[in-house]
Amino acid sequence: ARDLHHSCQWGSGIRWGNDPTETGMQRLALSDEDRQVRDWFVQTMKNLKCQITVDEMGNIFAVRPGRRTDVPATFIGSHLDTQPTGGRYDGVLGILAGVEALKRMDELGLETEGGVGVVNWTNEEGARFPMSMVSSGVWAECIPLSKAHDLKEVPTVASLPSAASAPETMKAALERIGYLGDVPCSYKSVPMAAHFELHIEQGPHLISAGQRVGVVTAVQAYRWFRLEITGRDTHTGTTAFEHRADALYASAQMMVRAREVAAAKGCLASVGIIEAAPGSVNTVPGRVSFSLDIRGPETALVAEVEEELRSAFDKIAAAEGAGIGKPCQAKWTLDFDSPAIKFHEDCIDCVQESALAVVADAPVADTKALVRPIMSGAGHDSVFASKRVPTSMIFVPCRDGVSHHPEEFCSEDDCATGASVILQAVVRYDRR
Amino acid sequence: ARDLHHSCQWGSGIRWGNDPTETGMQRLALSDEDRQVRDWFVQTMKNLKCQITVDEMGNIFAVRPGRRTDVPATFIGSHLDTQPTGGRYDGVLGILAGVEALKRMDELGLETEGGVGVVNWTNEEGARFPMSMVSSGVWAECIPLSKAHDLKEVPTVASLPSAASAPETMKAALERIGYLGDVPCSYKSVPMAAHFELHIEQGPHLISAGQRVGVVTAVQAYRWFRLEITGRDTHTGTTAFEHRADALYASAQMMVRAREVAAAKGCLASVGIIEAAPGSVNTVPGRVSFSLDIRGPETALVAEVEEELRSAFDKIAAAEGAGIGKPCQAKWTLDFDSPAIKFHEDCIDCVQESALAVVADAPVADTKALVRPIMSGAGHDSVFASKRVPTSMIFVPCRDGVSHHPEEFCSEDDCATGASVILQAVVRYDRR
Ligand SMILES: NC(=O)NCCC(=O)O
Ligand SMILES: NC(=O)NCCC(=O)O
Repeated sequence: ARDLHHSCQWGSGIRWGNDPTETGMQRLALSDEDRQVRDWFVQTMKNLKCQITVDEMGNIFAVRPGRRTDVPATFIGSHLDTQPTGGRYDGVLGILAGVEALKRMDELGLETEGGVGVVNWTNEEGARFPMSMVSSGVWAECIPLSKAHDLKEVPTVASLPSAASAPETMKAALERIGYLGDVPCSYKSVPMAAHFELHIEQGPHLISAGQRVGVVTAVQAYRWFRLEITGRDTHTGTTAFEHRADALYASAQMMVRAREVAAAKGCLASVGIIEAAPGSVNTVPGRVSFSLDIRGPETALVAEVEEELRSAFDKIAAAEGAGIGKPCQAKWTLDFDSPAIKFHEDCIDCVQESALAVVADAPVADTKALVRPIMSGAGHDSVFASKRVPTSMIFVPCRDGVSHHPEEFCSEDDCATGASVILQAVVRYDRR
Repeated sequence: ARDLHHSCQWGSGIRWGNDPTETGMQRLALSDEDRQVRDWFVQTMKNLKCQITVDEMGNIFAVRPGRRTDVPATFIGSHLDTQPTGGRYDGVLGILAGVEALKRMDELGLETEGGVGVVNWTNEEGARFPMSMVSSGVWAECIPLSKAHDLKEVPTVASLPSAASAPETMKAALERIGYLGDVPCSYKSVPMAAHFELHIEQGPHLISAGQRVGVVTAVQAYRWFRLEITGRDTHTGTTAFEHRADALYASAQMMVRAREVAAAKGCLASVGIIEAAPGSVNTVPGRVSFSLDIRGPETALVAEVEEELRSAFDKIAAAEGAGIGKPCQAKWTLDFDSPAIKFHEDCIDCVQESALAVVADAPVADTKALVRPIMSGAGHDSVFASKRVPTSMIFVPCRDGVSHHPEEFCSEDDCATGASVILQAVVRYDRR
C-alpha cells in the first residue's frame, strides 16, 4: 500500500479527503507524469535485479529470472496510465501487486522454474489515445504497429491545450518521453508462459455481496464508435423547428434511443465525449461528433444493438431537416472492437485455488462464499494477452462499485488479499 | 456591394462557391480581423469628413454634421462582428448601407438639419463574449459597464486555442486591439435623435412570400441560460444504467424535452454549445454544461417555457442517479435577458413610407404587397437603442431564410433596395 500511494505522487488528481492519499489520479498515457512513474518503475525493478525490456509500444517488461532459461517467464501485468479524472487503483494496483510479489519472493528466497515478470502495458485506458488496451493488442499482433503509432491524442480535461490544436501521435509521444524501445512489440519477441492480472472490479457485485475475491472467467464484448452528425448551421432565433437540420437535437435523440435499445437487450450504450460546432449560443449546430461505447455479455448481442441503432439513428437523422429537404446525416466510424473472450481453464483454476487459500482463515463460517466467479464488464490487457497465452484475472471489491472517478477506492485489506492471491496463482502456475 | 465585399476581406470564412465573394465570414468581435475592418471603417468615415468617437465599449460613432449643432444626429447602426461560421450580410450590410448613405448624401450635396451618423456596435453577436448586443446595452445603461468589461470569451471553432486555456476579457481585448475609447459608453455622452438599422431578415418569411422589404415593428423576447448538470463520473463498461448519474444522458433528455415544451407554446428553444467532462470514451460524464436560448413573441411566453423546463429538468435530473441515491442536479444561470419590444411609431412610419416609395416602380401590379410589417426573431442593437431613442428597422430577404451560416446570401438588388430605404427613412425623419 505504501508503494501504491508512493507511485501515485506522479499525476495525483482531484482531492476528495484530507489524507495525503485521498486524491484521484490524472496520469494520461505518455504524459510527463507517466514518464516519471515509468522511471520509478524501471528503477524499482532494477533494484530487484530484474531484466528490463522496453518494446516499440513503450511496454515495459521486467523479469526476475528463474532456474530455467529455456522457458518464457510467467507475467503479472496491468497499467500505470489513468483516466483524466481517474482513481489510484485502476491499473496501478495490478502493477504494484506485481512489484510486491517480486519483493516477497526475494524476501522468501523463493526460486521459480521459469522467470516471473511484471509488465506495464502502455495506454490501457484508451483515454488519451482512443483505443483501449492498444499496446497489448499490438503485442498480440491483433493491432498493426503502424495503426497504433499513428493514433492521435484526443483532448480531455487533463490534456495540455496543445491536445486540441496540435495533437501528438502515439509514436511522437513515446519518443518525447524516451520510451520508444527498439525491441519489436510482439508475443514472438517477448514471449510469456502465462499472464495474470489483479484489478479492482470497477463494478458493484463483490462489494454489495460482501465478497472478497472475484475469479474472472470472461470479459464482455465491446465496440467503440465515433459518430458524426451533420446538419445545417442556422440562426436559433429566426429558424422554426421545421426549418432546422439541428445536428445536436438529432444527437440528443440518438443518445436517448441508445440507452433504450441497449437496455432492452441487456447491454450497455454510453456516450462519453461530445463536441458541437460551431459552438455559439445563437447558432443551431450543424456538426456534432460523439463517442459511442456499446457493451454486452456476447459479441452477437453487441452487434444486434449496433444494427438496431444504425437504423434508428438513420431515421432520427432523416426526420431532422426533412422539412427543408436537407436532412441530417449520421456517419459511423468503428474505432475499436473487442469481442467477448473466455480465460484459460488452467489459469482460472490457479486463481480459484489461491483465492480459497488466501481467504481460508477469514472469520466467517463459509469462507468459500467469499470467492466467486465473475465476468468483467471492462476491458483489460488480459483480453489481448489471452489471445496468445494462458491468462486469467483476479478482481477485488471497490467502494460503491465506482471507478473512472477520483474517489475510486479499494481498502488496504482488499489490496493485500489481491496481492496474496496473484502471488500464489503465479507460483502455482509455475509449479504445474 | 463593392464596399460590402471589400470589407469582408478581413475575416473571410468558409468558401461555398467559386466567385471571390462566395465565402462566409469568421470575424469574432475584437479579433485581429475585427481590428482591421474597424481601421478601414474609421478611415473611410474620416475620408467622408465624419467626426469619429470611440467609447469605452469600442463602439465607433461617425457623424456627418448637419446645419444645426444643438441637436443630436440621427444614426444608422449595426455591427461588423460575425458568428464563428457566419455570413457576409448579418450586420455587415447594415454598416455598409450607412457608409453608402453618407456617400450618396455627399454626392447629392444633401444638407440635413441634424447630423447623420453611422455606428458600429461591438460584439452584437454575443458569439465571442456571451452576451448579444452587449455594447448597445451598456450605451442604453441597461447593462453595467463593469459587467460587460469583465465578460470572458468562450471558445468556438473560430477561436485561437488560448480562448480555452486563457480566455480574454472584453476589456483586455478592447485594449489589445486599440479600441478601448475614453468617452463614457452612455446615451447621455453620445446622444442620438433616432436609430435606424437595415438587416437581412435571417428567416424565411420575405423570401418565401416573394416580398422585398420588411418594416420591422417589434422584436421577440429571448433569454439565454447556461445549464450545468452534475452527476457522477463512472465506468461505462461496468456500471449498469440504474447505477449511473449520467450527466450527459440527462442533458440529452433535457434537450429533447426543451423542443417539445417550446413547440407546444409557439416558442423556440435551442442548444448551441455543449461541453461534457471529463471527456473520455469509457467514462460516464459527471459534468455537462450547455447553453439554452429560449425565444417567443411575448416575454410572458418565454417565462412560461422557462418555468416548465425548470421543473421538467429537475425531474429528469432527479430520476438519473436515483438508484444510487445521488441523483443528477441541474443548475441554471441567466446570461442574458431581452424582453420583447415594440419599435417607435414615427420611425416605423418613416420606414414604411420610404419602402413604398423605393418599390413603387417594381414591375408588379400591387407594389404595396412587396412591403410587409414583420416581427424580428433575432435580437439587434436596435432593441437597446429603442430603450432610449425612437428606433426601427428594415429587413430585406435572404436566400432560404438561412443566416448564421457561411452560405447566408442577400442579392445585390435586395441590398440596394435596403440601402435606398434606410437613406430615405433617415432623411424623412430628419425633416420631421
Ligand atoms: N479497466 C479499464 O478501465 N479498462 C479500460 C478499457 C475499458 O473501457 O473497458
Ligand atoms: N441578428 C443577430 O443575429 N443577432 C444576434 C442576437 C440574437 O441571437 O438574436
